[in-house]
Amino acid sequence: MAGSSYGTIFRITTWGESHGKALGVVVDGCPAGLPLCEEDIQSYLNRRKPGASSIATQRKEDDCVEILSGVFEGRTTGTPISMMVRNTSQISRDYGNIASCYRPGHADYTFDQKYGFRDYRGGGRSSGRETVGRVAAGAVAAKVLSRMGITVQAYTRSIGPIEADLEHFDAKAILCTPTAMPDRAADERAMAYLEGAKKRQDSVGGSMECRVYGLPAGIGDPVFEKLDANLAKAAMSIGAIKAVEIGDGFAVSKRCGSKNNDAFRMENGHVVKSTNHAGGVLGGISDGDMLLVRAHVKPTPSIYLTQSTVNQSGEEVDLSIHGRHDPIIVPRAVVVLECMTAITVLDAMMLNMSARLESLETFYN
Amino acid sequence: MAGSSYGTIFRITTWGESHGKALGVVVDGCPAGLPLCEEDIQSYLNRRKPGASSIATQRKEDDCVEILSGVFEGRTTGTPISMMVRNTSQISRDYGNIASCYRPGHADYTFDQKYGFRDYRGGGRSSGRETVGRVAAGAVAAKVLSRMGITVQAYTRSIGPIEADLEHFDAKAILCTPTAMPDRAADERAMAYLEGAKKRQDSVGGSMECRVYGLPAGIGDPVFEKLDANLAKAAMSIGAIKAVEIGDGFAVSKRCGSKNNDAFRMENGHVVKSTNHAGGVLGGISDGDMLLVRAHVKPTPSIYLTQSTVNQSGEEVDLSIHGRHDPIIVPRAVVVLECMTAITVLDAMMLNMSARLESLETFYN
Amino acid sequence: MAGSSYGTIFRITTWGESHGKALGVVVDGCPAGLPLCEEDIQSYLNRRKPGASSIATQRKEDDCVEILSGVFEGRTTGTPISMMVRNTSQISRDYGNIASCYRPGHADYTFDQKYGFRDYRGGGRSSGRETVGRVAAGAVAAKVLSRMGITVQAYTRSIGPIEADLEHFDAKAILCTPTAMPDRAADERAMAYLEGAKKRQDSVGGSMECRVYGLPAGIGDPVFEKLDANLAKAAMSIGAIKAVEIGDGFAVSKRCGSKNNDAFRMENGHVVKSTNHAGGVLGGISDGDMLLVRAHVKPTPSIYLTQSTVNQSGEEVDLSIHGRHDPIIVPRAVVVLECMTAITVLDAMMLNMSARLESLETFYN
Amino acid sequence: MAGSSYGTIFRITTWGESHGKALGVVVDGCPAGLPLCEEDIQSYLNRRKPGASSIATQRKEDDCVEILSGVFEGRTTGTPISMMVRNTSQISRDYGNIASCYRPGHADYTFDQKYGFRDYRGGGRSSGRETVGRVAAGAVAAKVLSRMGITVQAYTRSIGPIEADLEHFDAKAILCTPTAMPDRAADERAMAYLEGAKKRQDSVGGSMECRVYGLPAGIGDPVFEKLDANLAKAAMSIGAIKAVEIGDGFAVSKRCGSKNNDAFRMENGHVVKSTNHAGGVLGGISDGDMLLVRAHVKPTPSIYLTQSTVNQSGEEVDLSIHGRHDPIIVPRAVVVLECMTAITVLDAMMLNMSARLESLETFYN
Repeated sequence: MAGSSYGTIFRITTWGESHGKALGVVVDGCPAGLPLCEEDIQSYLNRRKPGASSIATQRKEDDCVEILSGVFEGRTTGTPISMMVRNTSQISRDYGNIASCYRPGHADYTFDQKYGFRDYRGGGRSSGRETVGRVAAGAVAAKVLSRMGITVQAYTRSIGPIEADLEHFDAKAILCTPTAMPDRAADERAMAYLEGAKKRQDSVGGSMECRVYGLPAGIGDPVFEKLDANLAKAAMSIGAIKAVEIGDGFAVSKRCGSKNNDAFRMENGHVVKSTNHAGGVLGGISDGDMLLVRAHVKPTPSIYLTQSTVNQSGEEVDLSIHGRHDPIIVPRAVVVLECMTAITVLDAMMLNMSARLESLETFYN
Repeated sequence: MAGSSYGTIFRITTWGESHGKALGVVVDGCPAGLPLCEEDIQSYLNRRKPGASSIATQRKEDDCVEILSGVFEGRTTGTPISMMVRNTSQISRDYGNIASCYRPGHADYTFDQKYGFRDYRGGGRSSGRETVGRVAAGAVAAKVLSRMGITVQAYTRSIGPIEADLEHFDAKAILCTPTAMPDRAADERAMAYLEGAKKRQDSVGGSMECRVYGLPAGIGDPVFEKLDANLAKAAMSIGAIKAVEIGDGFAVSKRCGSKNNDAFRMENGHVVKSTNHAGGVLGGISDGDMLLVRAHVKPTPSIYLTQSTVNQSGEEVDLSIHGRHDPIIVPRAVVVLECMTAITVLDAMMLNMSARLESLETFYN
Repeated sequence: MAGSSYGTIFRITTWGESHGKALGVVVDGCPAGLPLCEEDIQSYLNRRKPGASSIATQRKEDDCVEILSGVFEGRTTGTPISMMVRNTSQISRDYGNIASCYRPGHADYTFDQKYGFRDYRGGGRSSGRETVGRVAAGAVAAKVLSRMGITVQAYTRSIGPIEADLEHFDAKAILCTPTAMPDRAADERAMAYLEGAKKRQDSVGGSMECRVYGLPAGIGDPVFEKLDANLAKAAMSIGAIKAVEIGDGFAVSKRCGSKNNDAFRMENGHVVKSTNHAGGVLGGISDGDMLLVRAHVKPTPSIYLTQSTVNQSGEEVDLSIHGRHDPIIVPRAVVVLECMTAITVLDAMMLNMSARLESLETFYN
Repeated sequence: MAGSSYGTIFRITTWGESHGKALGVVVDGCPAGLPLCEEDIQSYLNRRKPGASSIATQRKEDDCVEILSGVFEGRTTGTPISMMVRNTSQISRDYGNIASCYRPGHADYTFDQKYGFRDYRGGGRSSGRETVGRVAAGAVAAKVLSRMGITVQAYTRSIGPIEADLEHFDAKAILCTPTAMPDRAADERAMAYLEGAKKRQDSVGGSMECRVYGLPAGIGDPVFEKLDANLAKAAMSIGAIKAVEIGDGFAVSKRCGSKNNDAFRMENGHVVKSTNHAGGVLGGISDGDMLLVRAHVKPTPSIYLTQSTVNQSGEEVDLSIHGRHDPIIVPRAVVVLECMTAITVLDAMMLNMSARLESLETFYN
């Protein structure tokens, strides 16, 4: 089916394979009048760019974005914004057993079962490069949100056993450490841990979080389109994510109600919560507090260690995956989580504008 | 917005409030020719019915379902199946401070922020009774799936600190223990634990799992409509769920790739996996193994203990919630998770039928 | 597939068959705060009610609507509004050859081809009674529109060769003549014409128009979701409609550009058009002028005259259709066109609120 | 809103403006395994290419398509097919009063009302060039349909007062006459008529038809997603179309039931209709007969004759539109109607595969 679109009013459609000619996205439903240029997009793409550190794949891609439509005289027109990144570093090589083997932890086998065959070059459509389009679109969403005073910020929470210390949250570190942790000391420990994993020819899992500041109360819907349900889908649609939490997440299942409920109180004439176990959502609708999404990411399935698997002919074979792959997915996925969250929140806000009759009346009268 | 529909081809639309006249669902897109009667639905509804044990709300509702359309001479016609349950036990009483106070952990405040006012009787649309429609629809989906040899089974995994022992999985216990655990010994311990919580006028969280047996490989989509992304949304759309895991879930973030990858091997001429850390999904597409979804549920927010909160006039007040409420949500939510999973899987299967050109050619030639 | 829902933000889902237990609709996405009671709906349903005149089927149905959810203390809550009408006049009879024959001009054969069998009682889901749900939903949409000064008005334009004179448009006549024409003289001539058709045991076609007054400029979208494209779909989705025109419609294909273009001019400081050949839409977007939709309706396919057809066993047979059927469809379809137009326009207005960045900024800041 | 996508399973998303860098489309949901190359697409694009005859705009565009994704080793992979055409002939010029004036019959005024400003170069997104993406996508749909023995064929029915003679339907003439009429004599008369219009500095309207051969019975849905309703939307979403007919269309409103009903009879063991007034659809579902859609197209709104209008400052001005524009829209719109019809029919067929339980059982067991 058509599974490459996301969103209802602010809707994105991504396309492209790891080793095809290009990757891109069409952003439809962006409001007219937003100042937008390629640099706005490029700064987001650079955060997921390969080749930037020792833990990112050595594939070199400039990932230069081109805006092909939807912007006129420096502003969005309200019509689709088409953006494209050409692939430049598709090394032409013999894919050999990759073409015929089912790599454990990858989608090779399931693609063949679904489609009958697959583009085996670098994972094709199931490659992490698919997220180029998401990030380009998310950069647009984030810029719209910023106009309403809303900030979306994701970061690495943990790598293997190393946790970032959030008490001394260092927002600047997110953009300048190779791990995207908000904690320089943890970043250093994590880098050492990753070096060990690389030496063992293995890979490592981790977790990341995304915060949304400034979101007003009242966004989201009470039943199937709960804001947290859509955030969970948004996160889980990123490859390799196997678990999603909102607010205190898993911890709530071991807790008593008296400890888990967030008491309401007044502050400067506004209703606020004394705590935020809920992560900013009550009954599927934002409560005015900080949104918090946490995602758990599996280790990179491509490892140099020899693994047992089967090939398309149904033979059991041993496989060692050479080539360019990261020992960890998380640091480069952080900006993807941030972008998917931004898109989800913006779409929910757009859908919310007609929730009250008085809003319609004010708007149109 | 219109947030009460779910699914694309097999699409359900639920309606109704806790203390309104009735609750119901319209199931659209059900294939024609399925034998269906009210008893098929009733047996599912009975699993979520209140009043069945000491840990379920003492509200007595028969929850008798009436099929109003879409079935002719005992079989579905392919047109919408409308099902309704009349509310019979809306105790007419003074809602007093509930009408004006924002109950902590509930959606009272967020509803007011979104809609400007709310149906305060028993939580209105954000009540657990909203799931009546989901369960009626899920019963239909499960019956369709059973025709293709697919079984969906949910159960309580843990209540507070008490975990069910899955090594000696007792499927029969799920339907006959008050906790819906597949482990009678754990059920007894959990019941004792719940009695303690009730005495403390408090409530308790827990977790549940859902398994899908018999799902063929190749179902789901590679990007936004990943099967696991939709399962996560399906689960997270159930009130009070704060975290969702697929397969080994959050454990993967602490693991190495060599331990997390599931090796492929041949068994009786079929490709199988030696382990199932992935929970039956690779790259968003089913791999032929058992699907596993896990959901973490917060403690019932309604507790008898006094809590601090504010009212609609912006005054800080103390609140003690009387009335009928469960000390734990999980046991009655198990069938809801099962039903949401069934609907999600069936819809994905329907959407998958045109994935290959040869399927279209075979179907229409 | 799930084809019984319509609309994106204001979304309706209808259900029910001609001779089933009941018919109904779920209206999702209606803004909160609209005063609404059953009488608001009933007055619309009465306009399509059978048994009201000599040209309407003699089937007697009270079509009493019951609001089951979504309204609290006299106002909509923003959650789904479920409305139901019980069927009371399903005469239990021998459907005999109707059950096995394919009536010409009806959907009997195509239902069997699609679904494998069908509810043959009175046309089942393809009966005109299916529109009960559309009309109940349209009454809600029309009430919302009226709050923004927008009026939707449909009427019969022609019956067979008899055309209403629109120069002396008599709006009151629409609701009190049996033909729903805005012209009492034409109504009388049309009634005489219809009596002749009844005597010949035949049926008659006709046309109807729908006007929308007060719609602001700027509503609709430029590509696939053109306002006129959606109005065309809305109209054509009503059974028996075979052609749809916007503004001057068919006539434009014989015209020169210099005669077809509507000149712009200023009036009281506002941009207006000197003529309205376009019917209120330019490039898919409303231009502030009156919207005009015209629909052409085929003659009732059920006639008393003997017709040639085949039955399910593949035998050629003669068929004479007895029972209760109108000699013309148009007068009772007028309110359906009005309702489908109202729903379409309201949904387009809701979707339009985020078209400009400044609207979002104003709304949320 | 996001109005640039069309279709549910086979879903296309178009982008691009008349004088932007490029135009394109993403085709999502195309079945895997279809042989596809750029030439398949190019042959369709050539049919709508400007500069091909004296009645087509003298703008020269090669409209060379590039396939950017979704095809591997010559076959579609089931993932999005991104296709792009670079604009090469955007003459850089002073748009002068076009930039500030509202051209009669164009979307200039309505774009400004909706979005607050617009890309005024050549009509921007509301230009006929927007259909490049539709045609590229339709070429793919048509190729899939051809694999199931289904042919879609559109042609010009009339230009001004000149009608093609369909009794002696000359299919080859469609592709080689400048008018795209299936009648060489009418083509010559129409060309003479168009020369006259050009001399008068005026433009001309016309009509076109689309036929679908080989469509099996049973495709489409009975209520809102009627096949004819979707075909009407598909057609009306093409710029300048003001009326749509199915089968005998507006003629039915003057007809009696006994003349309009198509009798069923047996032919070689199959149910067939003796006539096809219905145009191949009964109750929204295909009946196995030839589908027939007719669309009426307004005259090109851009004319050299001086017209009265207003500008953005609210001043009344005289306007004469210079530049490159066709005296008639129809001949180049024919392939667009054909493509929109192909997309609509294919999507309906894909959605139909799960209409019966037995189809699901056969597919998955």
